[in-house]
Amino acid sequence: MADVYLLGLDFGTESARGVRIHATTGEQEASHTHPYRHGVMTAALPDGTALPPAYALQDAADYLEAAEAILTAIGGGFEIAGIGIGFTASTPLPARADGTPLSALLPDEPHAFVKLWKHAAAQPYADAINAQGGRFLKNFGGRLSGEWMLAKAAQIEAEAPAIWKQADRFIEAGDWLVWQLTGLEARSLDFAAYKAQFSAESGYPNHTVPGLADRLSPPLPVGSAAGLLAPGWHERTGIRGDAVVAVAVIDSHVVLPAVDGIAAGTLVGALGTSAAYLLLGDRAGELPKGIEGVADGAVLPDLACYEAGQAGFGDILAWYIRNFPRAETVAESFRLYDESAASLNPGQSRLMALDWWSGNRVPFADSSLSGLLVGLNLSTSSTQIYRALLEALCYGARSIFDHLAAGDLPIDRVILTSGLSRRNPLLLQIMADVLGREIEVPDIANPTAVGAAIHGAVAAGIVPDFAAGAARFGARRFDRFTPDPAATGVYASLYQQYRQLAADDRLRQSMRALGTAGGFPNGSSETPRYASQPASPEREVDQAHP
Amino acid sequence: MADVYLLGLDFGTESARGVRIHATTGEQEASHTHPYRHGVMTAALPDGTALPPAYALQDAADYLEAAEAILTAIGGGFEIAGIGIGFTASTPLPARADGTPLSALLPDEPHAFVKLWKHAAAQPYADAINAQGGRFLKNFGGRLSGEWMLAKAAQIEAEAPAIWKQADRFIEAGDWLVWQLTGLEARSLDFAAYKAQFSAESGYPNHTVPGLADRLSPPLPVGSAAGLLAPGWHERTGIRGDAVVAVAVIDSHVVLPAVDGIAAGTLVGALGTSAAYLLLGDRAGELPKGIEGVADGAVLPDLACYEAGQAGFGDILAWYIRNFPRAETVAESFRLYDESAASLNPGQSRLMALDWWSGNRVPFADSSLSGLLVGLNLSTSSTQIYRALLEALCYGARSIFDHLAAGDLPIDRVILTSGLSRRNPLLLQIMADVLGREIEVPDIANPTAVGAAIHGAVAAGIVPDFAAGAARFGARRFDRFTPDPAATGVYASLYQQYRQLAADDRLRQSMRALGTAGGFPNGSSETPRYASQPASPEREVDQAHP
Repeated sequence: MADVYLLGLDFGTESARGVRIHATTGEQEASHTHPYRHGVMTAALPDGTALPPAYALQDAADYLEAAEAILTAIGGGFEIAGIGIGFTASTPLPARADGTPLSALLPDEPHAFVKLWKHAAAQPYADAINAQGGRFLKNFGGRLSGEWMLAKAAQIEAEAPAIWKQADRFIEAGDWLVWQLTGLEARSLDFAAYKAQFSAESGYPNHTVPGLADRLSPPLPVGSAAGLLAPGWHERTGIRGDAVVAVAVIDSHVVLPAVDGIAAGTLVGALGTSAAYLLLGDRAGELPKGIEGVADGAVLPDLACYEAGQAGFGDILAWYIRNFPRAETVAESFRLYDESAASLNPGQSRLMALDWWSGNRVPFADSSLSGLLVGLNLSTSSTQIYRALLEALCYGARSIFDHLAAGDLPIDRVILTSGLSRRNPLLLQIMADVLGREIEVPDIANPTAVGAAIHGAVAAGIVPDFAAGAARFGARRFDRFTPDPAATGVYASLYQQYRQLAADDRLRQSMRALGTAGGFPNGSSETPRYASQPASPEREVDQAHP
Repeated sequence: MADVYLLGLDFGTESARGVRIHATTGEQEASHTHPYRHGVMTAALPDGTALPPAYALQDAADYLEAAEAILTAIGGGFEIAGIGIGFTASTPLPARADGTPLSALLPDEPHAFVKLWKHAAAQPYADAINAQGGRFLKNFGGRLSGEWMLAKAAQIEAEAPAIWKQADRFIEAGDWLVWQLTGLEARSLDFAAYKAQFSAESGYPNHTVPGLADRLSPPLPVGSAAGLLAPGWHERTGIRGDAVVAVAVIDSHVVLPAVDGIAAGTLVGALGTSAAYLLLGDRAGELPKGIEGVADGAVLPDLACYEAGQAGFGDILAWYIRNFPRAETVAESFRLYDESAASLNPGQSRLMALDWWSGNRVPFADSSLSGLLVGLNLSTSSTQIYRALLEALCYGARSIFDHLAAGDLPIDRVILTSGLSRRNPLLLQIMADVLGREIEVPDIANPTAVGAAIHGAVAAGIVPDFAAGAARFGARRFDRFTPDPAATGVYASLYQQYRQLAADDRLRQSMRALGTAGGFPNGSSETPRYASQPASPEREVDQAHP
């Protein structure tokens, strides 16, 4: 019998990556990365048309180019049973009824292009929808993000009605890619639930945008087969076999089975440039205060998945290293800072930071807040500041854990992923000490793409369910960080101080006043914004492996 | 007629400095510096006896050695009309009735030595006296500092009663040096009023320390002649002429006439490692909230002088440069930071600092407060942080001005001294912009020693009064910094935010909790303290002239 394989595709912000995995042994045998030809377009379209501020567009044609290159490189000549896809979201585009992206027809029209997850210009439309309110927001803390699909649809409908009229479909790029690969429009419940506020009981909130209902279609559960790879793709890539294509999944969600995140009570955190936490539960209950969203069965079948995150994480450390380097290379600076910070005792410096460099998500959902350092004195060292940043990131994580716990959501197991987790044992030990919990860090390459491949395996029937997929294809080894009781005691008291600082209303008022104060002659009026997109483990701080 | 000269002596923390000035032309013709043989003793006495924590002692014999070296170097062979002395305070010592310091008799007894101004171990005695309270503290905000004479006397009385018993005299080192030079015990009203809470109406608060009354003596006004240089000194130094020795003055006060600080409404600030502000007024009124002290006629005849200060100033900049250097030398780092910070607009960075690295004096008088940075985001640069520190120092200064103004004290003229003032035009321009006032920076070398020489001139009758002394011997050229109206407008609004941050009670509570939290295993229990001693212009940040 010939060897059979699975392909997993991870469509990130700047590039796509694919892995080929042996369907029986579970070994990862090949990977390939392909950057998007036009990357993230913030200033101009490919034809030179200038873009307004806060735009972040992509060209759908780039996804096809990347898909073909990757499928050819890792799949050509192989017997492929299934293909799974993780994709950034909400990253929607308008298309004709036959799937043609409007950007192919209207190359000088910004609203015809893909609006990348971090396109921020739709925020006013989210604000308007939030002002109306509605039951469809109950699982999202009553607050629609400007980066989600409804806001982006509303922006096109309001600002470019002619485009909206020509858009037979408004569709997440992940779903659109599945359509291109299979010839069938098969939307994912994951995108629909988290990015378009679809629910099984109420459907889509079609009232929020005129004409929205005509442009969407009902979603399929994750792990479903969307269809078979279309013949043209077999020809172009050399892929053999059925190649069942699974419905697409949000990249930050697709990773779960690759790191053994398959059971209620498991929390998986991705410590990247920002940090994203997913807590699996039995069934979606009331959303705890400050937690960002929840949906049932949209990330994994039969499980609820709560989402929360820290707007800044590894990027805060990278900011510090960039501004105050200790060596020629970033990696060496990190190594030197980590080495010296490891020699400090918890709380020794009497220094504290609020990890709000990009605003705060939980519990304040306020991007106008800012980073803070307090406790500075003449004996404060640069190492102490670095360690205070590490500690603040961990306090921020604990704050999220506490808000989840306040919602009676049990957390039995903590799995932290990403390169940062694997490279920085000091950070992980402080995290274990601050959380007072054992932390597991999976040792696995390309986890997002592997998670996508597991979706392909489930859709193709190679494994009966995600648990079996996780067992065969997921991480086999975990590093464990165990809390030190003495440090945990010290951090428990320091964390109370972090919470008190965070709870200081006047302080947050000062931050907002400072961030939005006007009237500076020639001064920048740009305020920091945070991305509501949870970071995938692959989208991480530029900290090379020492 | 032979040329006649004046000598001015400035006894600082680590060394003494002297200048010789021509009595007619006012030209500074020579200067000499002599370090103290034993410096500041914090760990051990000269014989090796170990010292407890928070001790800072000096050896009175070092003062005599320095005086002889300096007087010989700059006065030997010259006709000297008058000698003036500025001295750190409160820096008292116990002595026998003949002036012999007890340390000469009991060289292994810490309490027999000079307690330098920054000796901090007497704080509990100040706390106890403050708990009692009393009218004698009304001109000092109801609060005795642990660095003042009464607290230091109380410490000896309580901890070393045998020493206290042998101490016929308890005397400021400046007064003691005058005694040694002239053979006459002549105490200064300046030391007595500001450091021993003497007032013309009530005398010394003798009730605060048992036996204190016997060990003090009534003070003389500043500008008085204490006596003539004793014959032995003439022999040892080669000084000719009468050499009238003026009563001593606190070093930070003695500088005033050298920089034209001789009239009511003039504020003189010394921007050193910390910042000290002296505001001259017609008559001491009620002490404005937060202002640290006032006395009548003790600094200059017929004028009240209000004192206030920032616990940290140049040392905060030096801290930043030391931790985050940009070049091999401190001076070059300063130059590079200043150069890049000058290109930023006021408020451009939306970053703010509280200048409390060493606690806050005005208005909180709380050394447990700490430095703060807020408004940090991923685009914050190291230059922006440096500029935020410059701005925070100026907001701190403005806060003091505002507290003075709230006490209906007119400020007509602002003179800022010290090397830092002369070397950092960016800081001075920001200061002018933040204060919204013209600032004058005197161009004069060794201003403290020159001020002392002017006291010698007045005591010797070379000039009729301090105004005449300032005109003949003081600074002849001032650099002027004029506020830019646009910048002043921006800073007015930012300063409101500084005040709001400073007024945030919960934030200060967090700072205190952080600074004093206990129970850190192996952690340092040292909390930052601030020096209540106003910095003299000579005692400044280590920022070499670029």
